[in-house]
Amino acid sequence: MTRTPLDHHNCSFARTVDIIGDRWCLMILRDAFYGVRRFSEFKQRLGITQAVLSARLGHLGSHDLLTREPAEGGSSRADYRLTRKGKALFPVVIALMQWGDEWIHGEIGPPIVLLDRSHARRVDRISVTAGGVAKTAHDLTFECGPGATQETYEAFAKLSQS
Amino acid sequence: MTRTPLDHHNCSFARTVDIIGDRWCLMILRDAFYGVRRFSEFKQRLGITQAVLSARLGHLGSHDLLTREPAEGGSSRADYRLTRKGKALFPVVIALMQWGDEWIHGEIGPPIVLLDRSHARRVDRISVTAGGVAKTAHDLTFECGPGATQETYEAFAKLSQS
Repeated sequence: MTRTPLDHHNCSFARTVDIIGDRWCLMILRDAFYGVRRFSEFKQRLGITQAVLSARLGHLGSHDLLTREPAEGGSSRADYRLTRKGKALFPVVIALMQWGDEWIHGEIGPPIVLLDRSHARRVDRISVTAGGVAKTAHDLTFECGPGATQETYEAFAKLSQS
Repeated sequence: MTRTPLDHHNCSFARTVDIIGDRWCLMILRDAFYGVRRFSEFKQRLGITQAVLSARLGHLGSHDLLTREPAEGGSSRADYRLTRKGKALFPVVIALMQWGDEWIHGEIGPPIVLLDRSHARRVDRISVTAGGVAKTAHDLTFECGPGATQETYEAFAKLSQS
């Protein structure tokens, strides 16, 4: 994972992408939401080498997205589980899946559907809303917030002039 | 971009990640939502080489996420603009940003905020809902859908046994 780091950016998006913007990290997170816990199961499902999987699991662990815990039932095995911080990525995972459902599998229908356990109803399409009303990018404007640095203010001022 | 392809997966998530699961593609998409249109502006903002930027813009164009159009005002310059398919990634971009707002910039506050133009109100936190009610991953279950192959059925059967 010798990538140009993005962790110096004054941007929540860039810093999130710096942590999880890697295809294997994203695939591991998907499988963790499916309920995969074991190293061998991740390896078999994803078809990646032990070294790549170890590196990615270590990376996700170092950012506190996955935790390694003794498996249930007293076995000596360790299970990988999503932390609260990892679970908070659920909307990201579902937004990526739903985009593919529409734009890649639109004609044949989704390979996997996500149902409410109690009502056997499919989850809603994820959308960006304000006050509960769906909004497109055109209805919205990006502005500097409380965490913006001087550099971010300057970059945004340039942006609105161009 | 010599990556293990994921486009053979019977999975909307994997196929979406195959297209956009790359840090520079994601950063270019972010900037396109900010309103960046010019090659030189992407290059300067992202601090990447001409070759890397060209490759990523070409990749996003080949998947019909960005289109190259003559700039407004009759200049000979070409502008890169999000297509309808590209704009449909808006919830993905905002979900990534909001996760960073909470888990990385939680204490100092977000560098960038997204406001409704007409009401100057911040957008809502993106969540996964069913029938309009917010759901966690625990409330939901993944099942095979109409586009599932035999292999996907078998992989999911194994998953629920483990």
